Amino acid sequence: MSDELTAVVVGGSGFTGGELLRILSEHPHIEVVQATSRQYENRTIGSVHPNLRDSELRFQDPSDLASADLLFAATPHGVSMGQIDAFFDAADTVVDLSADFRLETVDQYEEWYDGHDSPAYLDRAQYALPELYREELPGAELIASGGCNATVTILGLYPLVESGLLDNVENVVVDVKVGSSEGGAGGGAASSHPERSGIVRPYAPTGHRHVAEIEQTLDLSVAFTAHAVDMIRGAAATCHVFPGQPVRTKELWSAYRDVYEDEPFMGLAAGGRGVYRYPEPKVLAGTNRCDVGFEVDPSNRRLVVFSALDNMMKGAAGQAVHATNIALGLEETAGLEFPGMHPVGAP
Amino acid sequence: MSDELTAVVVGGSGFTGGELLRILSEHPHIEVVQATSRQYENRTIGSVHPNLRDSELRFQDPSDLASADLLFAATPHGVSMGQIDAFFDAADTVVDLSADFRLETVDQYEEWYDGHDSPAYLDRAQYALPELYREELPGAELIASGGCNATVTILGLYPLVESGLLDNVENVVVDVKVGSSEGGAGGGAASSHPERSGIVRPYAPTGHRHVAEIEQTLDLSVAFTAHAVDMIRGAAATCHVFPGQPVRTKELWSAYRDVYEDEPFMGLAAGGRGVYRYPEPKVLAGTNRCDVGFEVDPSNRRLVVFSALDNMMKGAAGQAVHATNIALGLEETAGLEFPGMHPVGAP
Amino acid sequence: MSDELTAVVVGGSGFTGGELLRILSEHPHIEVVQATSRQYENRTIGSVHPNLRDSELRFQDPSDLASADLLFAATPHGVSMGQIDAFFDAADTVVDLSADFRLETVDQYEEWYDGHDSPAYLDRAQYALPELYREELPGAELIASGGCNATVTILGLYPLVESGLLDNVENVVVDVKVGSSEGGAGGGAASSHPERSGIVRPYAPTGHRHVAEIEQTLDLSVAFTAHAVDMIRGAAATCHVFPGQPVRTKELWSAYRDVYEDEPFMGLAAGGRGVYRYPEPKVLAGTNRCDVGFEVDPSNRRLVVFSALDNMMKGAAGQAVHATNIALGLEETAGLEFPGMHPVGAP
Amino acid sequence: MSDELTAVVVGGSGFTGGELLRILSEHPHIEVVQATSRQYENRTIGSVHPNLRDSELRFQDPSDLASADLLFAATPHGVSMGQIDAFFDAADTVVDLSADFRLETVDQYEEWYDGHDSPAYLDRAQYALPELYREELPGAELIASGGCNATVTILGLYPLVESGLLDNVENVVVDVKVGSSEGGAGGGAASSHPERSGIVRPYAPTGHRHVAEIEQTLDLSVAFTAHAVDMIRGAAATCHVFPGQPVRTKELWSAYRDVYEDEPFMGLAAGGRGVYRYPEPKVLAGTNRCDVGFEVDPSNRRLVVFSALDNMMKGAAGQAVHATNIALGLEETAGLEFPGMHPVGAP
Repeated sequence: MSDELTAVVVGGSGFTGGELLRILSEHPHIEVVQATSRQYENRTIGSVHPNLRDSELRFQDPSDLASADLLFAATPHGVSMGQIDAFFDAADTVVDLSADFRLETVDQYEEWYDGHDSPAYLDRAQYALPELYREELPGAELIASGGCNATVTILGLYPLVESGLLDNVENVVVDVKVGSSEGGAGGGAASSHPERSGIVRPYAPTGHRHVAEIEQTLDLSVAFTAHAVDMIRGAAATCHVFPGQPVRTKELWSAYRDVYEDEPFMGLAAGGRGVYRYPEPKVLAGTNRCDVGFEVDPSNRRLVVFSALDNMMKGAAGQAVHATNIALGLEETAGLEFPGMHPVGAP
Repeated sequence: MSDELTAVVVGGSGFTGGELLRILSEHPHIEVVQATSRQYENRTIGSVHPNLRDSELRFQDPSDLASADLLFAATPHGVSMGQIDAFFDAADTVVDLSADFRLETVDQYEEWYDGHDSPAYLDRAQYALPELYREELPGAELIASGGCNATVTILGLYPLVESGLLDNVENVVVDVKVGSSEGGAGGGAASSHPERSGIVRPYAPTGHRHVAEIEQTLDLSVAFTAHAVDMIRGAAATCHVFPGQPVRTKELWSAYRDVYEDEPFMGLAAGGRGVYRYPEPKVLAGTNRCDVGFEVDPSNRRLVVFSALDNMMKGAAGQAVHATNIALGLEETAGLEFPGMHPVGAP
Repeated sequence: MSDELTAVVVGGSGFTGGELLRILSEHPHIEVVQATSRQYENRTIGSVHPNLRDSELRFQDPSDLASADLLFAATPHGVSMGQIDAFFDAADTVVDLSADFRLETVDQYEEWYDGHDSPAYLDRAQYALPELYREELPGAELIASGGCNATVTILGLYPLVESGLLDNVENVVVDVKVGSSEGGAGGGAASSHPERSGIVRPYAPTGHRHVAEIEQTLDLSVAFTAHAVDMIRGAAATCHVFPGQPVRTKELWSAYRDVYEDEPFMGLAAGGRGVYRYPEPKVLAGTNRCDVGFEVDPSNRRLVVFSALDNMMKGAAGQAVHATNIALGLEETAGLEFPGMHPVGAP
Repeated sequence: MSDELTAVVVGGSGFTGGELLRILSEHPHIEVVQATSRQYENRTIGSVHPNLRDSELRFQDPSDLASADLLFAATPHGVSMGQIDAFFDAADTVVDLSADFRLETVDQYEEWYDGHDSPAYLDRAQYALPELYREELPGAELIASGGCNATVTILGLYPLVESGLLDNVENVVVDVKVGSSEGGAGGGAASSHPERSGIVRPYAPTGHRHVAEIEQTLDLSVAFTAHAVDMIRGAAATCHVFPGQPVRTKELWSAYRDVYEDEPFMGLAAGGRGVYRYPEPKVLAGTNRCDVGFEVDPSNRRLVVFSALDNMMKGAAGQAVHATNIALGLEETAGLEFPGMHPVGAP
């Protein structure tokens, strides 16, 4: 594994593209040979991402892709599905961070998005939450990395599904709180600092597109609402679950440990002493970790499940690199070992 | 109504006490003759509350209460129930902002708190959300002003209860987000700026004491979880409701308008254009308003109800003054007309 | 004074325009009869300024101005100078909140701006910091309200100038920290929440245009640098002054009290106990107040002068209404009595 | 260099101690064998520092120090000077992050602090800003790591001193803005979230103790004022400098490049395009970098120098590890390579 693999990052000037460039700059086995951006062509990547000022790399136009082992696409929804042939001309393995190859069928794209330009590729894509699809990843040629809000929800609920505690449960309420980096670079009036600071804003009361991924993956109906709150990085899900029968805390610990015990990027935080007793996104900023936790409400047979991650990392670029590491047989944690900071504010 | 009424504010150095002092300093018919504080005795109220620096008033020890028409108690839970006789020796009307007289029975206090010292007063107290109990307030001698998280939840759900849309609904999920002023002045490590900034922290996953008020008032079971987020003032509730039958948006508008149309402090925000389409607490900072709104999720027959207020105002001091205005026959909005600011950050 | 005066607000959809609409909605003697906005024509003012949702007023196109006693112009630099004839066709008194009539000569406009379209009006304008020009305001027909960063600096230094402590002082260092509302509604990438949060950003290291106002008013050379920090409302100036001779704290108290003692909107905060010992902008959010304070540094004969205000209020709309009240013979504080909130976050 | 060095961290539960534990957990050549804390004895380090939850290490009482190659002391001022003999009993090399060994003479400690308990050690200590004292560090047995506000100021001004541009300059104004982590874990009312959020608070108008380090190091008189602003990590200094003669930007570039060109942790940001044109602390959160930049103000022959760093890293733990790496002959950047995040909020 001492050989370098080469990578192209398409859409390198966006927030997620910048995060990929940051991770890969420290990755022991992958070297970025090209980052593309229409808007910032010929400018250094550090002129957009100030944490990468030491890099000599300059953005190039995406119409002239370099050949590489890997291509990461960090473009808005709808771009990858139109460029996928060009992507495969340039690289052997394509890792797409958009929603374009996450769903299984054209029908789903017609229901949740605006249809699909390259339906033939849907079968070739491997949806990637590594914790759920580790076995399917080695050798995958088209990796569809999961969405941030879908990932935080799925990782919170998955152990309950696996343990059967959600059998016969009709509906799970998912109340999500997210930071402003989910809106991407740029943004309009609603994203300006004066209007976006200090908010608890219901930005997707119903109908959030990530519901499609969640329901496809967990085979479960979710009642999903997303709020924007005052942080930059971070997504936190609170899932309110009403299992058919009483559940004991001990069973929950078993359910979660069974599934996540050996996972390098999953943590459990469920009570205890101290300030940080449940999952909180700020603790995870800059890391590829997802923390999950829970509490039982005896009065009404409810479980409350908490999960949190950095939407740019475990919810996007970090998860994509994790999946890539597995797909290519590298150590899973390569490039993803930053443990996060304490204290830290609204990262 | 040109006669001044006199008032004592007990617990004047806390956040809620300061808010009472601020409101009453501008109130056309009430004059504060005494503010008490053990810790800050003899210091000006402006030395603690910098917005009141122009006042000559100095804190006095609470053991020597002045005689007045009104006494506002802004003390922590458990104080008023021990001092209630002294309060009535000093004043004709007592307005208590703590939880000490909100519940109807000693049994409830034993279930949710640590019992009750003065159970004989429970029958004499009038719980006060003015929108629900306007008719009962005139002449009330002991007003128990509702709690912040209870108020925001009750005002969000009340029109649904009134309209019958919650008949046969077993459980409503209430997911609340609150600011740091709810923790009061002082506070420990968890409230320090480095640890409290940028958080989405589940601080009451289950068992929040305000559930007692909500269930007593609405006769409804709620699955309640509270999160601390990065703001100072503000409480926002998202209620996830599954009515037995499909509900149309039009019905909801009717239900909310029927109940709140003539209310001076209630606003409806349910969609539309612009940045602020649903209730958001930051819009309401410093005001006595509560905004409510809703959305129908057709896919799973869910209603999502949003409500927001300033926990120090509509959730505490403002609501108490509103109730007092009604109880004493003053204009309802006296002292409570500040419309709020735009833009404003994390007030 | 029981007669209502009518007013038009040109540029009503911007932040400063919204603040004018908020103040005037509570003003006892002025009624807004028209608010203009090209972009939001026909929409309610509350659709842009959520704190004004109860108003029936709708934005109208600025090309068709109503007749009124007063016209407030809250437009970007360069608009008023082109429209000034139309403004005076519509109203007897024009209050301009832009920089267009603040400087005395065309030469200054050529040096600091892009020249001037209506130089004949420069002599007719009265620059308005009410504390400095109270005597000149009655009867003024064109009021040029001071800029936010200029106002906070001038009010901090003015007592030193008046007392002669700055005689022979060559240079004063002015280090200013401002909130994001100074950037106005909208804004580009640098104003987006992810890029603008948590910053200490030198946005005007040198050459800030408000230097022209400061130097014209105080007849003093200033070395001025402005930083953007993480708040929405607020401007704070730290002036580092090196007087020729040692200065005692007692002299400073005299200097400041002499000038500001009877001012309704000026406060002194210079040491003492408690959390808020010096001027801080957050204490003043929503108010028309400016706090000033100081400290003597014995080691190097330096004075440090602190001043703070809400840039939207005392630095813009509030100051303009204050000047208008004086100009028209109304009580000075009409519409400007909100005392501010405590606690409050990053308003 | 493949041999592990062992280290003890005294004061491991504080913010700086936690940062040391974080850095050393990833350091290729140093292993922490003991972390001490009186308050949290027997609890895991992750119970206090949530980013270190995966560690098995538990705090031990500081009265029973383990033997190790290195001892890092991250204790409040005054502790190390009393414990220094015990520290050297435990370890060969002591790295002190407090102020206890930074100044050269007892007289200075009597002027700026409360005297000194172990004056004999002052001569044995090496003050460590690695950029200034790289040559003196190899073999140092007692390293006194520079203070955060001193470091940011010194690194900003040092090239001007070296180049002679500050010869004959009597006074430099240093206006510093810092985050809340400088106050340390815990903290009182002024550090609580409601009182500390959104502030621009002059917390050290004059007399800041770090002035002693700055003046000792640069042989220059500084007029120093520190403000607390709304961030958690970060210190930014704006130095206003009036050189005796005009200075050209080109000279400044030379002065800064000459000194910092080969430094692994220094960056230059002085104008250019994009959002981040000057040093800003948020860009540096979590990194060991310091950015410096400048601008010339032609109107008054002023230079404005900006510098920024993460006070917990380059201003404390990172700088201490950097100095240690040099002292022990390790690669300078070991353990310190995190490039920082973009975007990031108020870290």
